[in-house]
Amino acid sequence: MCRHLGTCIFCKIIKGEIPSFKLVETDLSFSFLDIGPLSKGHSLVIPKYHAEKLHQLPDEYLSDAMPVAKKIAAALGAENYNILQNNGRIAHQEVDHVHFHVIPKPSLTDDEGLVVGWPAKKADMDELKALHEELKGKL
Amino acid sequence: MCRHLGTCIFCKIIKGEIPSFKLVETDLSFSFLDIGPLSKGHSLVIPKYHAEKLHQLPDEYLSDAMPVAKKIAAALGAENYNILQNNGRIAHQEVDHVHFHVIPKPSLTDDEGLVVGWPAKKADMDELKALHEELKGKL
Ligand SMILES: [Zn+2]
Ligand SMILES: [Zn+2]
Repeated sequence: MCRHLGTCIFCKIIKGEIPSFKLVETDLSFSFLDIGPLSKGHSLVIPKYHAEKLHQLPDEYLSDAMPVAKKIAAALGAENYNILQNNGRIAHQEVDHVHFHVIPKPSLTDDEGLVVGWPAKKADMDELKALHEELKGKL
Repeated sequence: MCRHLGTCIFCKIIKGEIPSFKLVETDLSFSFLDIGPLSKGHSLVIPKYHAEKLHQLPDEYLSDAMPVAKKIAAALGAENYNILQNNGRIAHQEVDHVHFHVIPKPSLTDDEGLVVGWPAKKADMDELKALHEELKGKL
């Protein structure tokens, strides 16, 4: 939990203190239409637990969220869509309560749906190998 | 399952037929470092089940994936990061086996990490309401 709990807009939506276009609700998750959509059907899945970032969320909430996103994606019937979850301001997180976006991508144009930039690097195998060794010690 | 199963590069990585910098492995998920990283630590979590898109994946695999992503995010120690799962070519999916990207965002610059474009619309409440009614019938 966190000091922002009392004023968190998503906690208020879960409690019904702020109205929303609710979609699927489970014991652990709540979902609703985004009112600032990138495309028709843009939805949010949020855990019923106030954590700011993904790595702070208990596993049971993490496990519950994706089947909810799946139900929404199936109902939307979108052929192309993105699931996006942002952590931290510079990673485009705007509300400090974990949320998963389900964003239909109806066309390749940049005027609707998520616009993705992909500055991929050529892999440096030695660096990857060193990073791999480092991470294995932490996992 | 699918006709591409025999040639799917991710299925081959899971079976060990193609080497990878493996991170966490569970009964249902496999994860490894992306060799075309957007930033240092860019990793992939894939279900051990060949489905092309999220809505085709059984719930148990969906539920298993996010706790694995969490473990990786925690090990990376990134303050800012994106979780991204793309469905369909125009939504930036390049390998037709569901995969969740864990992408650290070390700085606000566009030369590393995910670059996000956000063409949000002003919500038309009547349209949202109509869409909500339509979706409720399908959920
Ligand atoms: Zn909250
Ligand atoms: Zn596969």
